[in-house]
Amino acid sequence: MYPTFNHITVVGAGAVGSFYGAMLARAGHRVTLIGRPAHVQAIERNGLKLDFATSSLTEIIRLEASTDLSALRTADLVLFCVKSTDSAAVALQIASYLAPHALIMSLQNGVENASLIARHLPNAVIPSVVYVATEIPAPGSVKHNGRGELVIGTMQDSRLSDPQNTLKAIVALFESAQVPVQISHNVMAELWSKLMINCAFNAISGLAQTQYEKLAALASVRSTQAALVREVIAVAYADGIHLSEPVALQAVAQIYVTMGSQKSSTAQDMARSKPSEIDHLNGFIVRRGQELGVATPVNQALFALVKLVESTYSPHG
Amino acid sequence: MYPTFNHITVVGAGAVGSFYGAMLARAGHRVTLIGRPAHVQAIERNGLKLDFATSSLTEIIRLEASTDLSALRTADLVLFCVKSTDSAAVALQIASYLAPHALIMSLQNGVENASLIARHLPNAVIPSVVYVATEIPAPGSVKHNGRGELVIGTMQDSRLSDPQNTLKAIVALFESAQVPVQISHNVMAELWSKLMINCAFNAISGLAQTQYEKLAALASVRSTQAALVREVIAVAYADGIHLSEPVALQAVAQIYVTMGSQKSSTAQDMARSKPSEIDHLNGFIVRRGQELGVATPVNQALFALVKLVESTYSPHG
Repeated sequence: MYPTFNHITVVGAGAVGSFYGAMLARAGHRVTLIGRPAHVQAIERNGLKLDFATSSLTEIIRLEASTDLSALRTADLVLFCVKSTDSAAVALQIASYLAPHALIMSLQNGVENASLIARHLPNAVIPSVVYVATEIPAPGSVKHNGRGELVIGTMQDSRLSDPQNTLKAIVALFESAQVPVQISHNVMAELWSKLMINCAFNAISGLAQTQYEKLAALASVRSTQAALVREVIAVAYADGIHLSEPVALQAVAQIYVTMGSQKSSTAQDMARSKPSEIDHLNGFIVRRGQELGVATPVNQALFALVKLVESTYSPHG
Repeated sequence: MYPTFNHITVVGAGAVGSFYGAMLARAGHRVTLIGRPAHVQAIERNGLKLDFATSSLTEIIRLEASTDLSALRTADLVLFCVKSTDSAAVALQIASYLAPHALIMSLQNGVENASLIARHLPNAVIPSVVYVATEIPAPGSVKHNGRGELVIGTMQDSRLSDPQNTLKAIVALFESAQVPVQISHNVMAELWSKLMINCAFNAISGLAQTQYEKLAALASVRSTQAALVREVIAVAYADGIHLSEPVALQAVAQIYVTMGSQKSSTAQDMARSKPSEIDHLNGFIVRRGQELGVATPVNQALFALVKLVESTYSPHG
C-alpha cells in the first residue's frame, strides 16, 4: 500500500525547505512551512515569492507558515531542513508533536543526520541528497538558482514496513511538483560523495570569498582539493563506504564548469559573520578520521581556518 | 684586518631597512636609504620620523635618502632589504654600481636570498636573520614595535678573506647603534627556523586576519601549526638542515605569548590587497619539497589559499 501525503510540513524553512515546500504547494499539495518569525510573517502577509532565476519567472505561492511546531501534529510527511548543527535539538523538540506514521525526509548536508534524527525519534527517516542552488534574498522570498533534484534511499534499519512503495510514493509526490527524485540503493554513498564535494569546495570558497571558477585557475588549489578528496575517500573507506578517486576528481572538475559562478554556503555564512556548517563538513572528516585512525591534515587545516575566522565574530554580530 | 664601514646604503628601505638605517644614522654613521619616491621625498623634507612604540619616544633622524641607485657607488656595506620576490631582479640592477669590496647583508626572510644574490653579484653576502617588529605607518615614518636583534653568519662559500673579523666588525658596527647582533656558526639553520615559524603563522594570521594569540585558543589551529612545522622539518632535513621538533613547537608556543597582539606581515599585505611573500614561505616549502620528494600537503593548502585570495585582487590595486 502506498502512503498518502495529505499534509507536508517543512521544519527549518530556510532556502532549501522553502523551495521544496513552495514547489509542492504550487502543485496543489497542502504545505506548512515552520520557520523564523520574519520569514513567516512576510509569507502570511504576501505569500511566498518564488523566483526562478533561470527563466526570470516569479510566482506568488500561497501556503501556510508558522513559527509554531503544533503544525506538525497533522503532518504525514516532514521535510527536515534545519542546519546539521541543530539536528539533534530540533529532533527532540518535535518529538511530542509527531504522529507515529509521519515520515521524515532529511534534506540536509552531511552523512550523520538521518541516524542522528532516528536516535531521537521513533519515526522512519529517509536520508535524502539535495542538489539545488537556492537562497533567501529577503524574508518571504526564495530564489531558485539552479538544479533541484533529490536522491533518496533507506537507512540500514529503515523502520518502513514497505520501503520500496514508500520510496515510490515520495518519487510520485515530488514528480507531481516537477521535482525529479531518484531512488538510490546506496544513498549513504551518495551522501558521502556530496560531503566530499562540500569538503573540497566550501571552506576554500569561504576563506577566499571566491566563486568556484576561480579555484580551477590555480594548480596549487586543484592539488589541495585533490588532497582533501583523498582524505575523505580514506575516511569513508574506513567507515565502510567505497568512493572512487577518479570519479571524485571528475566531479570536482565538473563543479568548476557547471557551478562556476557560485560561492559555497560556507562563503555566504562567512560573508554574513554567521556560524557555518564546517563542523559537519571538514570538521566531521577530522573527527571521524580520528575515531577510525585515518590522518586528515588538510581537512584539519581548512576546518581550523574557518573556526579561527568564526572565533573573531562579535558575540552580538 | 677589520673592514671599515664609512658609508652604509640600504637597498629597499621598507619597514626593516628604514629601521636599521635609522638606528645606524642615529649613532653617527653615514647612511643612505634607497626607497620609493613618497618615502624618500618625505625624508628629504622632514627627516625620518623614528617612533619607539615601547618607550613612546619619537626622534627625527637626518639621513640621506634617494630613489637613485648611484648612491651605492660609495657604499662599503649594503643592507639588502627588498622583498624576496624582488631579490634576483634588484641584485642584477645594482650590479654595475657596487664597488668590489662592498659587503652585502641580506636582511630578508627565506632561506634562498643570500645564495640568490650571490649568484647575480661577485660581492660577499652575509645571510642575516632579522628579529624585529616594525612598520611604516606613513611615508617618512618608521615605527618600532619590538625586538631588533640580528643573527649573522657566513655562507658555505663566503668569499670573505677574513670571515671572523668581518663578522666581528659587523657586530661592532651594530652594537655602536644599540642593535644586538649574534654570530651563528649555522646561520642557515637559524634562517630555516625563522622560515618555519613564518610558515606556521603568516598564512593563518593572514587568511583569518587575526593576531597570534587567537591562534592559541583553538586546538585545531595548534594541530595545523604542528603539521606545518613537521613538514618544514622534513623538507629541511632532506635539504641537509637538522631542526628539532620539540624546540620548534616550543618556539611556536612562545610566539603566542611574546607576540600575541601581532598580526603577520602576510596579514598586513592581505589587508591592503598587496601581493605577499607567500611564494617564499609556504610556497618555498612546497617547491623545495617537490624537488626533494617530501610531501607538504598542509603547507600547500595554506599556500593555495593565499594565492587564491591574491588572485581576486583587482589589477589596478
